[in-house]
Amino acid sequence: MNNNEEALFCNDAFYQAFLGRDIPAMNDVWARETPILCIHPGGQALSGRHEVITSWQQILAHATCPRIIHKVDKVVSYDTLVLVTCYEWDERRPDNLLLATNGFSREGERYKMVFHQAGPTPIGPLERDIETTQPMH
Amino acid sequence: MNNNEEALFCNDAFYQAFLGRDIPAMNDVWARETPILCIHPGGQALSGRHEVITSWQQILAHATCPRIIHKVDKVVSYDTLVLVTCYEWDERRPDNLLLATNGFSREGERYKMVFHQAGPTPIGPLERDIETTQPMH
Repeated sequence: MNNNEEALFCNDAFYQAFLGRDIPAMNDVWARETPILCIHPGGQALSGRHEVITSWQQILAHATCPRIIHKVDKVVSYDTLVLVTCYEWDERRPDNLLLATNGFSREGERYKMVFHQAGPTPIGPLERDIETTQPMH
Repeated sequence: MNNNEEALFCNDAFYQAFLGRDIPAMNDVWARETPILCIHPGGQALSGRHEVITSWQQILAHATCPRIIHKVDKVVSYDTLVLVTCYEWDERRPDNLLLATNGFSREGERYKMVFHQAGPTPIGPLERDIETTQPMH
């Protein structure tokens, strides 16, 4: 895998942990030594591992935890940080389309998540992106 | 200035261009050679200089262009990319509070904007952040 493929792989791992409501996997996705930032839809700017992981534990443990399917991944590398944007469909609320940016940075050999920001995007992806992107994983 | 101070300076330049509806200044803020990504509130994932700059030209030229004041800046460096999160108050719509992340990367000697994502955050900043942050510039 090249760097971009590896970041997309880690992006998948994040959404698998989210969909599986898998707290240990979510713990493992996020960086441990690098500063992290997380902005949930409508939320505040969370920072630091304790604050960010606690927020995910609360989301994943909640009875109405969204069932997010990600599509239309786009990846851009800035060398030490790789950004992946993707659309998030909530299977529980199909009208609640979100757009997220996820950032990955290396810790040792592996990419770890260091940034997540998601917000509503009622109008959906650009047609160009749908056409040029791989089908949903 | 160290790297973080320089990124905060460029973040100010972005909001000055926005507030001044200054299209040449906005052109200058954004990177020319580095890949760029921009997600306006409720918008799609825009990429590439033409698409992103066109969107800003349309926003700045619009009669109801927001008058954004940024506050509570937080900066995190990932070496080749520096992220700044800040809250955006629209003077025209004080109830329309947004939270943005802006990314800056070097082109030659200067930091240039390579990433912007903003979305609504009705609940406002964490008290911790208000207390520990410099007053509004």
